[in-house]
Amino acid sequence: FDRTAAEAARRRQDQLTKPRGSLGRLEELAIRLAGLQGKPMPAADPVQILLFAADHGVAAESVSVFPQSVTNQMVHNIARGGAAVSVLAAALGARLEIIDLGMVTDPGPIEGVRSERLGPGSGNIAREPAMTSEQQAGAMNAGRAAVERAIDGGARLLIGGEMGIANTTPAAALACALLDLPPADLVGPGTGLDAAGIAHKTEVVATALALHATPGSTPMELLGRLGGFEIAALTGAYLTAAQRGLPVLVDGFIVGAAALAAVRIQPDVRDWLLFAHSSAEPGHRAILEALNADPLLQLGMCLGEASGAAMAVPLLRLACALHQNMATFAEAGVSEG
Amino acid sequence: FDRTAAEAARRRQDQLTKPRGSLGRLEELAIRLAGLQGKPMPAADPVQILLFAADHGVAAESVSVFPQSVTNQMVHNIARGGAAVSVLAAALGARLEIIDLGMVTDPGPIEGVRSERLGPGSGNIAREPAMTSEQQAGAMNAGRAAVERAIDGGARLLIGGEMGIANTTPAAALACALLDLPPADLVGPGTGLDAAGIAHKTEVVATALALHATPGSTPMELLGRLGGFEIAALTGAYLTAAQRGLPVLVDGFIVGAAALAAVRIQPDVRDWLLFAHSSAEPGHRAILEALNADPLLQLGMCLGEASGAAMAVPLLRLACALHQNMATFAEAGVSEG
Repeated sequence: FDRTAAEAARRRQDQLTKPRGSLGRLEELAIRLAGLQGKPMPAADPVQILLFAADHGVAAESVSVFPQSVTNQMVHNIARGGAAVSVLAAALGARLEIIDLGMVTDPGPIEGVRSERLGPGSGNIAREPAMTSEQQAGAMNAGRAAVERAIDGGARLLIGGEMGIANTTPAAALACALLDLPPADLVGPGTGLDAAGIAHKTEVVATALALHATPGSTPMELLGRLGGFEIAALTGAYLTAAQRGLPVLVDGFIVGAAALAAVRIQPDVRDWLLFAHSSAEPGHRAILEALNADPLLQLGMCLGEASGAAMAVPLLRLACALHQNMATFAEAGVSEG
Repeated sequence: FDRTAAEAARRRQDQLTKPRGSLGRLEELAIRLAGLQGKPMPAADPVQILLFAADHGVAAESVSVFPQSVTNQMVHNIARGGAAVSVLAAALGARLEIIDLGMVTDPGPIEGVRSERLGPGSGNIAREPAMTSEQQAGAMNAGRAAVERAIDGGARLLIGGEMGIANTTPAAALACALLDLPPADLVGPGTGLDAAGIAHKTEVVATALALHATPGSTPMELLGRLGGFEIAALTGAYLTAAQRGLPVLVDGFIVGAAALAAVRIQPDVRDWLLFAHSSAEPGHRAILEALNADPLLQLGMCLGEASGAAMAVPLLRLACALHQNMATFAEAGVSEG
């Protein structure tokens, strides 16, 4: 974090033709981005969205209203431009890279999708670890490599997203373990469970925690036992983004669990995270509180696919445009208060 | 409001490739815009911003930290592209029309500003009515005519904004009178008053209310006695927008007071108002509650100039893009839950 650039940005904000502080969080955003990017005139573009997809063995425990085949179907839909993240990326002019880390069935080559399969989905966390240490290293490396590609391509802002039927279950289990909270605090409806479904999912998470969240486990161990390929890839991506100085706009519940893991592995990661939105998934609140995060948007979204983060991109862009293009009191010949 | 179009939009939302309701308020926005525009595929563009400027006699009571000359200076700054609203309109590709309804000194012709002067600013509401009935009619007609021009130009979404040093004072007074609330509930720091300044401003508003908010006064009378030229123009603009079926994205505190007056004059206006943001000006809350409004953004802004409304434009655009461009379950071959 470049305090000199941030301080220069703050001084500039105080000279722009507006009452001091009247742009609220837009001023904070411009100043924070200036510090993160080391430039008094920060930029939100280019924006790189990384969309990691994988299947989850815990889907066998009937924790989702959608069948597991939907992961594969949605990866095709995202690649063809029909999913929410595809529409948002196109509308925003953001780059979108889709990475398949292992769905239950190998779909073969899909145009616009990188295949980096680590296996036929992760293990069923109610019975076994989500992944081997080799798979975990592979997933985290896939995240790291994707961020390196983004940086090589000139990205100034990173967004991670996910697609994987049943993945609110490992996300809730991982967050419970990292935060030492009971399953009832983190488990929610996901894509649409009713009360009975949520009660069952809560039991599944409790079983997984009893099996894997043994005293003294490290965040890295919990990520491998309770996470998923796409969650571990996101954690790896955020560790790398922070190390390489690339600001991250964090999506909702599942990505939030991955971000939490990254911060528990390396606390300095927190500085690089901007939180886009509060998910309607109720467990998101506990993750946000643990990360001392105050998201920019509250739109009642809970779709995943980086959609909530994408919605906040215009706020960052406009914050940068105001910072760069507004006249100062001196330039405009306007009297100060 | 076209219930058939709204219902068609709702059915489409339920067929798009996402869990039902997972786009939260973006789904509501698309459905509501569909009903307001009478089209199952609504659009947010073109966006027309109308920026009304005027001076206020009550500035003589020392209710603002900025000198009155700043209204004139800021109108020049807005026209030259250096103000927040200018930067936002350019970044968003929104149309911006600036209308001078009467500053204390006639600035003569300004490139990019329509001169529709009604006098050298409004009267000092602590001593006299803000305007004559002729001036009030002129201001409301200026708002009406501006909306007619916007509609003739093809606008699909209207944003009103204001510039006028001291205008949080008439806005607070007008809202107090319309809501029958004490000045302390509506008076705030505006552009930066300290506690002593707020206490003094509260007394000025109390004086104005004692003079003008006589029992049995109509909303139209209160607008003329306590408002300002730009506030009355905004009220006229919103009455016309509703009558002509043009959705309005409402800015913050001052515009909110004008919108409240429009709704009290003609309750059906409420249907046409979408609320963009919660202002940091504390009195905004009472106006929003009275209008049963739940704004899209909470960014701690309090700049005026339509800046808060402009920030919400991307949300409406992206809501429309998702509605129009996402694939349905059938189109994408995705299984429903």
